[in-house]
Amino acid sequence: MAAAVKTPVCVLGLGLIGGSVLRAAAAAGRVAFGYNRSADGMNAAVADGFDATTELETALARAAETGALIVIAVPVPALPMLLGPIRRLAPECPLTDVTSVKSAVLDEITAAGLADRFVGGHPMAGTAHSGWPAGHAELFVGAPWVISVDDHVDPTVFATVLDLIVDCGSVAVPARSEEHDAAAAAISHLPHLLAEALAVTAADVPLAFALAAGSFRDGTRVAGTAPDLVRAMCEANSPQLLPTLDRAMELLADARKSLASENSVADLVNTGHAARTRYDNFPRNEIITVVIGEDDWRRELAAAGRAGGVIRSALPVRDSR
Amino acid sequence: MAAAVKTPVCVLGLGLIGGSVLRAAAAAGRVAFGYNRSADGMNAAVADGFDATTELETALARAAETGALIVIAVPVPALPMLLGPIRRLAPECPLTDVTSVKSAVLDEITAAGLADRFVGGHPMAGTAHSGWPAGHAELFVGAPWVISVDDHVDPTVFATVLDLIVDCGSVAVPARSEEHDAAAAAISHLPHLLAEALAVTAADVPLAFALAAGSFRDGTRVAGTAPDLVRAMCEANSPQLLPTLDRAMELLADARKSLASENSVADLVNTGHAARTRYDNFPRNEIITVVIGEDDWRRELAAAGRAGGVIRSALPVRDSR
Repeated sequence: MAAAVKTPVCVLGLGLIGGSVLRAAAAAGRVAFGYNRSADGMNAAVADGFDATTELETALARAAETGALIVIAVPVPALPMLLGPIRRLAPECPLTDVTSVKSAVLDEITAAGLADRFVGGHPMAGTAHSGWPAGHAELFVGAPWVISVDDHVDPTVFATVLDLIVDCGSVAVPARSEEHDAAAAAISHLPHLLAEALAVTAADVPLAFALAAGSFRDGTRVAGTAPDLVRAMCEANSPQLLPTLDRAMELLADARKSLASENSVADLVNTGHAARTRYDNFPRNEIITVVIGEDDWRRELAAAGRAGGVIRSALPVRDSR
Repeated sequence: MAAAVKTPVCVLGLGLIGGSVLRAAAAAGRVAFGYNRSADGMNAAVADGFDATTELETALARAAETGALIVIAVPVPALPMLLGPIRRLAPECPLTDVTSVKSAVLDEITAAGLADRFVGGHPMAGTAHSGWPAGHAELFVGAPWVISVDDHVDPTVFATVLDLIVDCGSVAVPARSEEHDAAAAAISHLPHLLAEALAVTAADVPLAFALAAGSFRDGTRVAGTAPDLVRAMCEANSPQLLPTLDRAMELLADARKSLASENSVADLVNTGHAARTRYDNFPRNEIITVVIGEDDWRRELAAAGRAGGVIRSALPVRDSR
């Protein structure tokens, strides 16, 4: 795979994330072109000097001709309508996505018969603003970008997707889809629900807003996110969010009981502080020894990702499988 | 009260808050002196050019001679042992405190027969670090500083305490003690418990720390606070924290139910976003029309504080009562 010319990139959906992928791929010297359903987003991209169309069939035909990596960057509800055309018009192209929920997307992809050439992805980058104008080529620099290592993942497609992630300046975190979704429930979706509950609780207390300062501001910051975005994330991941929410509610109920009966919140406060300290000291090691395509490579990558491992540059690839 | 010479200040306890009050009072041109139980804190203050002693009786005798405002700045558990000496050695001095819980302190003060000359206070300033070296004269600049307007509050003592708050650069927020404690439960103690629960929940999910970013970092920041400080705050305010925690748990339980049965978190997310938006737009009006000591002045100030009113400069005082 020591090709001098990088794989072209075809981005479907030119919002914040897709638009930033298009820019980053172009900045890395790739041929990069995009499709956007609305003319507004397409025109904005073209006005900024990028190659974009509102014709899905045109974009996919060009992807097929050039052997491009197709990046699906539309919201989850819009995903299904892309899959038929992709299968029909670009049957050989490697395929990835940038969606915040991974199992639900993989199910759709599998049902459409596209799993063979699909390796899911999720860049952990900002969601506060949206649309082409909000994006930029450096959006992903230094950010974790999850890359799927589910059982079906093909080594060559994996290497192709990894190459794009590295080109975008991200650190790739290998993970299985269901593990990604469980983690996202704990570190993203639960914090949103807690922030909403905190904001609502304080709003009912007469003097609260008058005195609110640092801990309230921090604790409710993500409650400022547009409700539709929060709902979309949480509701698409309910199978993982429900047990996570149950766990948090159980911890609070235990603390409530101990506060009422013994006037103590020692258990929750001590374990919480220890957990946060562990997070502050969480290691970030670079994964360099795994060879893509060797026996057990997917499992090794999943284990390394769990332990804090990240991929910062291309890994070796076994000749074929 | 148009005295050319400002009331001297005697600070008992020279930690982060007390040490900063001593510095700010001195910087405002007042005679300011302090007591600290440990020689370390006292020596650090003296080395920085301030007037401090480890002899409580010496400090209180001087307060009595000079008619100083006594500022109690020790942790709640250390409070009772100061009250006997204060009553014995400085029976006429005005008295305030800077403790984060107000009803419990007021109960102690009342039991010690000191309520007549006590007006409680609580500067809403940082708690991440502690001790004399962490303090500075500008710690309170721009920060809300709650000043008690409970029924027992004496107008002259109130004006004296308010004058110090203004000298420290704070904005005074008038409030009744039990309302302060209810608000503190919602905007400070509850956020701490939610942050601890979030940290513990995520710590159990294999991939969570590997992917954690902005919303987790913000949502758990206060879980980095020393456990003893968090426990002291929460446990001293359990009468107010329990119903607040119940309310938050009820909101989460409702959201859980709706997520499980209808795959929707719309209610919580919409009301949470609306509450946070309301907080972002909360007005901050200056209170200028209330005359300290006139009929209903305490009630008027409490209502104004609830509505977001703050005091930035001295208020007029009725001649006497």
